[in-house]
Amino acid sequence: MNFLEKLDKAVQKNNSLLCVGLDISLSSIPAHILKDTDPVFSFNKAVIDATGDLVCAYKPNMAFYEALGGYGLDALLKTIEYVPKHIPVILDAKRGDIGNTSAAYAKTVFEIFKADATTVNPYMGFDSIEPFWEYQEKGVFILCLTSNPSARDFQFFGSDHKLYMEVARKTKEWNKFGNLGLVVGATKAESLGEIRNMVDDLPILVPGIGSQGGNLESSVKFGTTKNGGRAIFNVSRAVIYDSNPRTKAKNLRDEINRYRPSVKT
Amino acid sequence: MNFLEKLDKAVQKNNSLLCVGLDISLSSIPAHILKDTDPVFSFNKAVIDATGDLVCAYKPNMAFYEALGGYGLDALLKTIEYVPKHIPVILDAKRGDIGNTSAAYAKTVFEIFKADATTVNPYMGFDSIEPFWEYQEKGVFILCLTSNPSARDFQFFGSDHKLYMEVARKTKEWNKFGNLGLVVGATKAESLGEIRNMVDDLPILVPGIGSQGGNLESSVKFGTTKNGGRAIFNVSRAVIYDSNPRTKAKNLRDEINRYRPSVKT
Repeated sequence: MNFLEKLDKAVQKNNSLLCVGLDISLSSIPAHILKDTDPVFSFNKAVIDATGDLVCAYKPNMAFYEALGGYGLDALLKTIEYVPKHIPVILDAKRGDIGNTSAAYAKTVFEIFKADATTVNPYMGFDSIEPFWEYQEKGVFILCLTSNPSARDFQFFGSDHKLYMEVARKTKEWNKFGNLGLVVGATKAESLGEIRNMVDDLPILVPGIGSQGGNLESSVKFGTTKNGGRAIFNVSRAVIYDSNPRTKAKNLRDEINRYRPSVKT
Repeated sequence: MNFLEKLDKAVQKNNSLLCVGLDISLSSIPAHILKDTDPVFSFNKAVIDATGDLVCAYKPNMAFYEALGGYGLDALLKTIEYVPKHIPVILDAKRGDIGNTSAAYAKTVFEIFKADATTVNPYMGFDSIEPFWEYQEKGVFILCLTSNPSARDFQFFGSDHKLYMEVARKTKEWNKFGNLGLVVGATKAESLGEIRNMVDDLPILVPGIGSQGGNLESSVKFGTTKNGGRAIFNVSRAVIYDSNPRTKAKNLRDEINRYRPSVKT
């Protein structure tokens, strides 16, 4: 089963477009868990146990695990192995380099960490994405329009046809294996609608609706397909550091569903 | 001493603009070294011992170490610690993410691995670069025009004023701490000259003169400042997997010097 099939099934089974971002930080993990021999894994395990029937995917960000050295990478591996087999894991790494180097990065995310999907940076062009794309069973989300304020520095470069539109256009053109997707931030909901129109039913990973303040209603309205699918709304800190991650995740899932076309809540 | 001072001193001491890329691959390490308990470090140590008086910097690429898991990262740390203190280490990682995530990546390269400089991807704009830039003593090389063929997919986007020019322009504008530089591939030597004219004496990291076939003479001519400095020519595989890395490095250093203005050979 390839990534997109796995994603669609998880969306259906859990009736959810919510992705929970496992962006751990030792300074935010509660004191009683920090005493564990393996606090990062214990923390993630508790989040997964609490939300496994409410999400369509988990998204750990490599940065936070790398910053903890070898221990962090071991905890990441254990976390990915712990995620129920029917829930896809998107390892957010935003890699991109020349061919043989990208091949090493692709090997790391897909073979060492066994992620179902990853994120890549398009700046260096297709040959930097190709080694990821060649894993046809895996998902590859290409950064298009990101949720941070400085996205405007370069992604809006160009006159009418802007850089982020060119990235969306080329991604659609490259998608002959059906394993590509885009990252489009919820903080730019109108552009999200414009991109959705360009790329038909390509999956779109939408960060930014939690701590970053993107608008949920318009993101769901503009980001999903006519059938109310293929958009993955990621929330990290606002769920995992909530005093009750399960309730928070359930509320977010239900709120997303309220705005999805064709979905009964 | 900040990165740029360290770089300038190493350039002067070794009379060299050559950077050796420590891009290890288990399949290319000779069989007799693979038998060592720590083959990656042994291999790098031999390269550093053979070339330490011929280079201005070393540039390990994170991808190849990550792909070996925890062992690879330990070997990378040992390698960086082994590099003579007067030679700067550029840890090539091409990272870039939203603020708090980039902060974790910056911590990894500058605090865990203690690199003197790194490479970053500009696609997400200034706030994705800022956490690296805030380490004022460290060097931050922003991808501008890369050496791979697909660089043309997006870096040449725009009409007269192209995306890579906008990246060069903004980098110069952001450089109030004097710690920024650019990555410009040797495979596009004429654009390298154009960028050099735009950014005065900003350091430029120039990959692509070895296995990738960039032209050495024109890269040196177009990439260096009027004083024959501030360009760092990286060669990885063509040096480290040569049967005699010392001779190969010496020949490359001397050839680069032959084309530098104001340098006697």
